[in-house]
Amino acid sequence: MEQMRPPHFARVALLGLGLMGASLGLALREAGAATEVAGYDAAPGVAVRARERGAITVACASVAEAVRGADLVVLAAPVLALRSLLADIAPHLGERALVTDVGSTKAQVRAWAAALLPWGVTFVGGHPMAGAERSGVEAADPSLYHGCVWCLTPTAETPPAALAALSSLVERLGAHPLVVDAEAHDAAVAAISHLPLVAAVALTNAVAGRPDWALAQHLAAGGFRDTTRVAAGNPRMARDICLTNTQPLLAALDGYLAELHALRAALAAGDPNIEARFQMAQTTRTAWPPHTSPSEGAR
Amino acid sequence: MEQMRPPHFARVALLGLGLMGASLGLALREAGAATEVAGYDAAPGVAVRARERGAITVACASVAEAVRGADLVVLAAPVLALRSLLADIAPHLGERALVTDVGSTKAQVRAWAAALLPWGVTFVGGHPMAGAERSGVEAADPSLYHGCVWCLTPTAETPPAALAALSSLVERLGAHPLVVDAEAHDAAVAAISHLPLVAAVALTNAVAGRPDWALAQHLAAGGFRDTTRVAAGNPRMARDICLTNTQPLLAALDGYLAELHALRAALAAGDPNIEARFQMAQTTRTAWPPHTSPSEGAR
Repeated sequence: MEQMRPPHFARVALLGLGLMGASLGLALREAGAATEVAGYDAAPGVAVRARERGAITVACASVAEAVRGADLVVLAAPVLALRSLLADIAPHLGERALVTDVGSTKAQVRAWAAALLPWGVTFVGGHPMAGAERSGVEAADPSLYHGCVWCLTPTAETPPAALAALSSLVERLGAHPLVVDAEAHDAAVAAISHLPLVAAVALTNAVAGRPDWALAQHLAAGGFRDTTRVAAGNPRMARDICLTNTQPLLAALDGYLAELHALRAALAAGDPNIEARFQMAQTTRTAWPPHTSPSEGAR
Repeated sequence: MEQMRPPHFARVALLGLGLMGASLGLALREAGAATEVAGYDAAPGVAVRARERGAITVACASVAEAVRGADLVVLAAPVLALRSLLADIAPHLGERALVTDVGSTKAQVRAWAAALLPWGVTFVGGHPMAGAERSGVEAADPSLYHGCVWCLTPTAETPPAALAALSSLVERLGAHPLVVDAEAHDAAVAAISHLPLVAAVALTNAVAGRPDWALAQHLAAGGFRDTTRVAAGNPRMARDICLTNTQPLLAALDGYLAELHALRAALAAGDPNIEARFQMAQTTRTAWPPHTSPSEGAR
């Protein structure tokens, strides 16, 4: 075994105290994984509310104040805000600071970190596969990350000890670390997270734009509810995903459009073999989630 | 108030004892809405199992036996099977029998009933907006219809007393009757039930067909789970929906494809205004379900 930094941090800085950041603060404190959790949020008053909720121990009025002396810095802002956040923290980071994030896309963030962080600082991208439609510090939940897969996207230059420390921390929070290449991550989440979001948003808008929506919304039941659930999520986060994971999402969307057009053709032709497509989806969907562990699946 | 047949039936015949039929049997018996519930299913052994579960009181070996003497006949078979079922019951129906169904599409079934049932028999199409991915008599649940909207699709020729009797029965089962034109029903359910199904099936097939499915299925979380849930449903029922509600579903699908292509164009252009589309969907989705009653909404 390589030498591991113990998964305890003297001071963790949480930048961004929405659902993801504040839930992480609660989880860190519940796990006893940090002595001090310093928090900052760009929106006035949020850090104080986060401290009142117990998500952080110190409410900071600036990025500089939060980051000072932190051995772990976690960026929990919307993806597009990470570029300026990385620039803002750069002058204030300690020499041995470890920086990670919980953003939905990884290649773009990695590029920003490489360009903006000072030499000696280690950045390892992260993405816990968890979330909720509710948002804000009030929705924070210490169990948000329990049992979820938490992607970590190191590069060839990442010090093994830094990756090991983050992996141990993720485990300590009750999640399953999965080490994966940033590009492979972005393509996979485009398919299983960003595409479902786009599909749900398009479905909601298409149906609500119909002249018979007044009737239809009363007939809508569990199928509509579940198929469109993620469309109720944060629009800004969705926009950021589109703007930072454009090519993988376009590729996933084109695969989806091809499948929809094939279904449309079978439907228009009155082809009873359309059942085979429903059968295939049923087989896939009932076999999911898989029973193997994430690390086996990623091999 | 028009004269109402009391919502109690001496003998109800249930034809088809899958999830929908067997749940209806349990609900009828729980509500005390029928003295005798005679059941038939084309699959051997199902009627006996339904009687053992308490969903029916008499297990019948033929359609003729089940229908004989019934004052209410409920067809609970997949939509495409209803044509031959209507032909099969026709010679055995009593003069004052009331016939209804619980199929997902209504205009096609109404046309078959008009062509195949004898003069004097009243057919009123029905569609409870409830369901589940599980299927079969074993999945039957007396509360399946509690609180759901139950569409009834009479024509100008439907005797008011027949409609009133069915409406009362639906209420007695804990559901909300909604009288609606068959074509309006078919268009609305194409949008809020059949289109979500097609969208979920296409999403499942598109994502599972990717070369990175082995990784992606481990990263898939709540968004994928909910957006694809209905794809786990019965493929034959899905096929029947496609074959009996083709034009309304094509129209709904084309509206969906137009919205997806508009999102694709905004995505490819890197247009930050794409957020407006996410915002619109969030507004719609968080306002759903509506707080007005179905009958208000249908006006």
